[in-house]
Amino acid sequence: MTGLLSVVGIGPGAEDLLTPRARAVLQAADVVIGYGVYTEMVRAWLPGARCIDSAIGEEAERARASLELAQQGKRVALVSSGDAGVYGMAGLALELAATMDPAPAVEVVPGVTAAQAAAAILGAPLALDYATISLSDALVPWEQIERRLAGAVAAGFVLAIYNPTSGRRGHRFAQALAVLRTHLPDDTPCALVRDASRPGEHSAIVSLGHLIDAAIDMRTIVIVGNSTTRVVNGRLVTPRGYAMALMSHTGDAEATDITGQPIVREAGA
Amino acid sequence: MTGLLSVVGIGPGAEDLLTPRARAVLQAADVVIGYGVYTEMVRAWLPGARCIDSAIGEEAERARASLELAQQGKRVALVSSGDAGVYGMAGLALELAATMDPAPAVEVVPGVTAAQAAAAILGAPLALDYATISLSDALVPWEQIERRLAGAVAAGFVLAIYNPTSGRRGHRFAQALAVLRTHLPDDTPCALVRDASRPGEHSAIVSLGHLIDAAIDMRTIVIVGNSTTRVVNGRLVTPRGYAMALMSHTGDAEATDITGQPIVREAGA
Repeated sequence: MTGLLSVVGIGPGAEDLLTPRARAVLQAADVVIGYGVYTEMVRAWLPGARCIDSAIGEEAERARASLELAQQGKRVALVSSGDAGVYGMAGLALELAATMDPAPAVEVVPGVTAAQAAAAILGAPLALDYATISLSDALVPWEQIERRLAGAVAAGFVLAIYNPTSGRRGHRFAQALAVLRTHLPDDTPCALVRDASRPGEHSAIVSLGHLIDAAIDMRTIVIVGNSTTRVVNGRLVTPRGYAMALMSHTGDAEATDITGQPIVREAGA
Repeated sequence: MTGLLSVVGIGPGAEDLLTPRARAVLQAADVVIGYGVYTEMVRAWLPGARCIDSAIGEEAERARASLELAQQGKRVALVSSGDAGVYGMAGLALELAATMDPAPAVEVVPGVTAAQAAAAILGAPLALDYATISLSDALVPWEQIERRLAGAVAAGFVLAIYNPTSGRRGHRFAQALAVLRTHLPDDTPCALVRDASRPGEHSAIVSLGHLIDAAIDMRTIVIVGNSTTRVVNGRLVTPRGYAMALMSHTGDAEATDITGQPIVREAGA
C-alpha cells in the first residue's frame, strides 16, 4: 500500500464551509493529525475519524510524525484551519518530505480562509487587490512585518491581518497601527471579525483611529480598508470601480452617491 | 415572502471544491444568475437549477436584474467563480442594493479562489504573506496597477496575479513583467496555472526571466515568488521560517539544505 500525506484546509470553522474534497479525504484517512481545536472539529463532523491531537507550536514535530506515518503506507490527513497553504502546514510538510528517502507523496487540499469568511460577513472589503499579512513575529523579524505593512498600504492594497496579537506580544498590534496611521487617515474604514463562522462569531466595523480601542485577540481577523473602501448600508465594501463605470453607462449620478462614514457597527451571531 | 440576493462563490471549478453552503443556496434559489460559463457549471452540478445566463462584461446589468428579482420576493443566487468577494460580484451587488428602496437583503457566500486552487496544485507558494492583484485595467488605471505591483514585491509579498492578459491587452503582461524584473532577480521562482481544478488543467513552474515566453491567457493565474520562495522536489514553496526554527531545535542542518533552482516543471491533468 502506498502512503499519502494530504495537508487539508478544513475551512474557517463552519461545517458547511468544509469542501466535499476535504471531507472525503478526512473520511478516507487512516489517521487525522492536527492541533486539538481542529481535530475536535473533525471529530464533531466525522465521529468515526481516528484523530491524533497535537499541541499548538509543535508544527515541525507534527509534520514529521505525519510524514513518517505516510512513509509507512498510511493515508494521513494533516489538518489546518482555513486553507492548508495559507499560514498552514502545507509548506512545512513539503519541505520536510523532500529531506526523507523515500519521500512520501504529499497533496494539498485548499479551503476557505478565515479572511474570506470574515470578508463575506462584513460585505466585500477584499473585492479588489488585497494583501494578507500575519503580525506573528515568532518566525519572521518584526522589522520585516512593519516594512510589509507600510509597503502594502502605501501601494493601496486592502489588508487582511492574521494573528493581530496574543498575550505574549500585545504591544505588536499597537505598533502595527502606528505604522498604518502614518500612511492612512484615521477615518479609514476597518473591521474586525472574531471566530468567523464559528459559535460566538462577532464582527464590528470601526475606523482606523478607533481600532486601538477594539477588543482584538489571536482569533480575530482585522481588515484595513484602502482609500476607496466605504461603509454602504452597514456593510464594508471596496468598490472595483463599477459605480464609476455604471454612471458613465447609465448617466445615473445617484449610483455613485454612496458616501461611507467611519461608523461603528457591531454584530454578534 | 421576503426576497434575498445571495452572492455565491462557486469555487475554482471542481465540483468537490463547491462548499456545502454554496450548494444549499443554489439548490434553494428560485433563480441562479451568472456569466454563462458559471451557470453551465451550476446546471451540470444541479440539473434542476433554474439558470439565467448573462454575457461577460454586463456586471452592472446582471447585479441590477438580480436585485430587482430579490425585491420582488425571489430567492436569487448571483454566482461568481472562486470567492464572490474576491474580484467577484459581491461589492457591486451591495453598492447597488443600497441605492434601492426598499433595499433587498444581500448575503455573501465565500468560496475557494482560483489562486488558492492554483497554489494547492503547485505546492505552498502562498504560505506566508501574499498579495492578490488583477492586471485588468478595464476599471482601474494601469499606472495604479504598476504602482501596486512594484510596492508589493518591494515589500516582499508573494504575488497571485489574476487576469494577466487578454486579447485586447496582450502587452500589459509584458509591461507588468518589466516592473517585476526591476525589483526581483530573473531566477525568482514563479508559476502559472491555467484552468485550476477544471478539465484541461495545466501548470508549470518557471523562473521570472522565462515567464515572458510562457503561454498565458485570461484563464491563467500567475504566481510570483519572493526572495525565499524555492522549488522543493518539483513543488513551489514559500517557507514560513520553520526550516530555520527546526534547525535550531534539532541541530539537523540537513533540514535547511533544500536549495531551489529556477527549474521548469510542466504538469497537465
